[in-house]
Amino acid sequence: MAIVLGPNRYGKAENRVVRIHRDTPRHEIVDLNVSTALRGRFEAAHTVGDQSAVLPTDSQKQTVYAYAKDKAWTSIEEYGLVLARHFVEDVEPVDSARVEIEQFAWERVLVDGSEHDHTWVRRGPEVRTAAVTVAGPAGPDDAPRAWIVGGIKDLTILKSTGSEFHGFLQDPYTVLEPASDRMMATSLDARWRFSGGDDADWDAEWNAAYATVRQTLVETFASLHSLALQQTLYAMGRAALEACPQLAEIRLSAPNKHHFAYDLERFGIENKGEVFHADDRPYGLIQATVMHDDAEDAGPAWDSYTGLV
Amino acid sequence: MAIVLGPNRYGKAENRVVRIHRDTPRHEIVDLNVSTALRGRFEAAHTVGDQSAVLPTDSQKQTVYAYAKDKAWTSIEEYGLVLARHFVEDVEPVDSARVEIEQFAWERVLVDGSEHDHTWVRRGPEVRTAAVTVAGPAGPDDAPRAWIVGGIKDLTILKSTGSEFHGFLQDPYTVLEPASDRMMATSLDARWRFSGGDDADWDAEWNAAYATVRQTLVETFASLHSLALQQTLYAMGRAALEACPQLAEIRLSAPNKHHFAYDLERFGIENKGEVFHADDRPYGLIQATVMHDDAEDAGPAWDSYTGLV
Amino acid sequence: MAIVLGPNRYGKAENRVVRIHRDTPRHEIVDLNVSTALRGRFEAAHTVGDQSAVLPTDSQKQTVYAYAKDKAWTSIEEYGLVLARHFVEDVEPVDSARVEIEQFAWERVLVDGSEHDHTWVRRGPEVRTAAVTVAGPAGPDDAPRAWIVGGIKDLTILKSTGSEFHGFLQDPYTVLEPASDRMMATSLDARWRFSGGDDADWDAEWNAAYATVRQTLVETFASLHSLALQQTLYAMGRAALEACPQLAEIRLSAPNKHHFAYDLERFGIENKGEVFHADDRPYGLIQATVMHDDAEDAGPAWDSYTGLV
Amino acid sequence: MAIVLGPNRYGKAENRVVRIHRDTPRHEIVDLNVSTALRGRFEAAHTVGDQSAVLPTDSQKQTVYAYAKDKAWTSIEEYGLVLARHFVEDVEPVDSARVEIEQFAWERVLVDGSEHDHTWVRRGPEVRTAAVTVAGPAGPDDAPRAWIVGGIKDLTILKSTGSEFHGFLQDPYTVLEPASDRMMATSLDARWRFSGGDDADWDAEWNAAYATVRQTLVETFASLHSLALQQTLYAMGRAALEACPQLAEIRLSAPNKHHFAYDLERFGIENKGEVFHADDRPYGLIQATVMHDDAEDAGPAWDSYTGLV
Repeated sequence: MAIVLGPNRYGKAENRVVRIHRDTPRHEIVDLNVSTALRGRFEAAHTVGDQSAVLPTDSQKQTVYAYAKDKAWTSIEEYGLVLARHFVEDVEPVDSARVEIEQFAWERVLVDGSEHDHTWVRRGPEVRTAAVTVAGPAGPDDAPRAWIVGGIKDLTILKSTGSEFHGFLQDPYTVLEPASDRMMATSLDARWRFSGGDDADWDAEWNAAYATVRQTLVETFASLHSLALQQTLYAMGRAALEACPQLAEIRLSAPNKHHFAYDLERFGIENKGEVFHADDRPYGLIQATVMHDDAEDAGPAWDSYTGLV
Repeated sequence: MAIVLGPNRYGKAENRVVRIHRDTPRHEIVDLNVSTALRGRFEAAHTVGDQSAVLPTDSQKQTVYAYAKDKAWTSIEEYGLVLARHFVEDVEPVDSARVEIEQFAWERVLVDGSEHDHTWVRRGPEVRTAAVTVAGPAGPDDAPRAWIVGGIKDLTILKSTGSEFHGFLQDPYTVLEPASDRMMATSLDARWRFSGGDDADWDAEWNAAYATVRQTLVETFASLHSLALQQTLYAMGRAALEACPQLAEIRLSAPNKHHFAYDLERFGIENKGEVFHADDRPYGLIQATVMHDDAEDAGPAWDSYTGLV
Repeated sequence: MAIVLGPNRYGKAENRVVRIHRDTPRHEIVDLNVSTALRGRFEAAHTVGDQSAVLPTDSQKQTVYAYAKDKAWTSIEEYGLVLARHFVEDVEPVDSARVEIEQFAWERVLVDGSEHDHTWVRRGPEVRTAAVTVAGPAGPDDAPRAWIVGGIKDLTILKSTGSEFHGFLQDPYTVLEPASDRMMATSLDARWRFSGGDDADWDAEWNAAYATVRQTLVETFASLHSLALQQTLYAMGRAALEACPQLAEIRLSAPNKHHFAYDLERFGIENKGEVFHADDRPYGLIQATVMHDDAEDAGPAWDSYTGLV
Repeated sequence: MAIVLGPNRYGKAENRVVRIHRDTPRHEIVDLNVSTALRGRFEAAHTVGDQSAVLPTDSQKQTVYAYAKDKAWTSIEEYGLVLARHFVEDVEPVDSARVEIEQFAWERVLVDGSEHDHTWVRRGPEVRTAAVTVAGPAGPDDAPRAWIVGGIKDLTILKSTGSEFHGFLQDPYTVLEPASDRMMATSLDARWRFSGGDDADWDAEWNAAYATVRQTLVETFASLHSLALQQTLYAMGRAALEACPQLAEIRLSAPNKHHFAYDLERFGIENKGEVFHADDRPYGLIQATVMHDDAEDAGPAWDSYTGLV
């Protein structure tokens, strides 16, 4: 029985890269938060303090900024893929690389009714995300292969009717009243894994997929008469997979942002779903995966750098 | 020389009120954070623990939720005014009341290209604000009078060109290079004080004023070729006062959200304003007031409850 | 009636300075967040974009870091004073300077029971603060004079008994039950203004004052049987002024961090002040000033850079 | 190829429970943030909106507060175990339960040099954590079994010397200078998994383990002359396993909180590791596991509810 080094990883987190495209008077902005994490043959750094296999996190940062300009890419999935492949293919001790990216949305300012060429306001709270893992050799001919996950987080959505919750299991601690018409709100975190195959198959439809999945999620939330957040999430995930065939699975994490109808009757005021208290904590948290039953194994696709290792 | 009680104030902060209007199938949502603060004859509570003049903060909260339904109002300025007048007029020991409100924006979801009746997504980060103070007797005929401040905060705006900074004062610690073409970004906090007169003069054009001021601020930021953030702020304020005659003054607080051009030349990559690092801290902070030179004294208009007293 | 520039101010906020004293093997750490704000003759920067009177915020930052080493100071009040005097005395267009500082506490790690020479863990959440304003000429012989405010914020303190709340004013919205034994908790923000005179009078007892005031506040909160948070705050302020004669006034801002006794009776479980829900929002907010009745006018002492102008 | 429900989970997150023990005049406080998450036979809720197997998250909340008083427990690991076992054993459709708890530290106020009976101040930023998973039948005789993870997060620790970083791998993007004496700081997140056996084996030494592991981590960080954060983390983990034999493994996640020596030479000021800028982002992030080579498989021990599913 010995004490040994187990799984480990290191990188540079939260590089705040802003890329302006200004080849024409109408500029474009891409506003990102980029994190890198590498796995590989780094035992000596841990056990004897030998850094000879360790590419500094500072070098990873420089690469992130350099590639923002030096490489061609049109989506965060592609940018992450270029970065992750570089670390695996060009840095000898690296066995796998994870690149996670957040993209903050901006919209053009209107001046006299027209979109301005180079001024924007931030639009949130929703944030687009991507997570790319490249590990090698794991592909055909022992080439590295990639797993790509797109996503959206903090998509805060609310419906003021069209939601019920009743018929639930009762135990001695159940005091909740059934509801036939309640407010339903969440701040959705959704991540979708693209089907793989070898890297060459990637068709770079990531931006279109993002638009399709986001719209499908939102439409389904709005349109489905809900009997529970579970049912709504499953329907949203199912609709996303149907709308976007290149997805293998989608994972949804939805805090139930409770809006409690305020008791105004004691003041002689009727409250038919008109005045609510939006509570902070605690909150329900509902999480579900919807997937193709023949989806390829996820491999390291879900191995986020914000986890413990 | 004695030790005495000085200025004091108390209230209930951050009541998270959500008001749904559902008289027709097309619902409306008003999502608010409401804070109240009262001044008055509360010495005994402090000096001898006698609460007989103290309306509990819980009662203030109940009033906030009750009035959300029970009173008619169409803007946060009006809602704040109704609440503040109530506390001054109906609660005997109260001399003045301050109500501050944040309004979170939601936009309707599109389903099959049409706006949905009862589903929205949150839109931010910008937040509309109002601050109403009622003190009395201070108006004509010893009636209470009111001061009303509208505002917007966290309006994050960026321009990728059209901004210079040079010709500045030099001292022994000046190492900054002059810039002839830089990125300029801020997260604007703007608050505008409406001209007063007695309460009856309020014309309830607050929603229109909000739309006009916001658009004017944004257009001016975009259109003005900037020599400094100071110049931009002054022009924004001036344009707002010109566009909205009912304003007495506007105050602007603008963190300079620094975007530093990243040094890629050392890697043989040209960077002509294309790749930036968005830094967190420190940040420049520029604050300015633009006002009519004959504006009435501000009285307690700027006395925010988030200050110390 | 013209539109004019009103009050304005600019500076560099949140410089994260860490100063290590390492003249002996036993190092000392001073961990700060420093913000500067200048007022003066900056009209031309606003109205015509002329920067010739504007010392860049970057130069202010350089000065903050340079003075951390180059000047002798032993408290954040003194450091702020040195910086603020410099800006007023050495930078011609500056009429007044405000320096606000937060100091984060660290405590030495124990190794084999002994304090380590150069390793610490952060200790919070409480943070010491200082705010120094220098304006000139405003002192004797037209020398600049200074106002100094010390403080503590986020001092989170709780007592599980020894607090009542009853006998309060009732209105139609009062449903709160009186309490004869409740939990009382707050996250205190306290700021104390030192008595002035001309600058030479400062006796640099600021560190001792901090220790005395903090301990007095904490002891009074613990010892006083409370009839209301108002009473507790007043007693705390009064005790601080008595313990520390160089104070002119103290301002206290105390959110009432509500802990609601949880209703367990419905499950047949007795709950005599043993299980609480710590709620987030809304919260009561109680603010009070305690002062000497002959205290000199506060001048710009309370003019925080985080306000609007 | 069909679309199906994959892994799913639901619960109530962030119940802010405060438990006061007041059987004697010397009260004790236990301040917690408790989250529950259940897995089981909930397909019908997702696919057809049938809630008959779903225990409401509200009922989970009631149970959390009820058990705070109704059950005997002396550590957060034990409290989590009692809760998780209840959900698995007493709620029929539940196959496994996860309970995660944060414990906020308070220390007694000193009054006249003595610890006060019922008043405390919060002490942070560090937070103790526990994560308990019960799944069944998975133990001997098809009884449910448990996995228990203790931890600490936001342990912010800094050493002003005794840290080097050089001899690292160089690539074309490497511009970092080697350092022979640098500041090293992190905000540590450490989690340790206890060795299992069946539930009866738990010896409830969790509080002692917490104290031992925390002290061991801190002492090792201070004492080891560091050649890299990797080396320091490994040594810390190894020391923890040696000091606390009941641990199977420990996982460490350490942001490298960069403190950059400030360039004062350009102002003629020497800076020998005395003045630093504490930067926010980006930051290095180093993560490592240290384990016994014969440690039992971790099962669901690391399956945090804050992950996606």
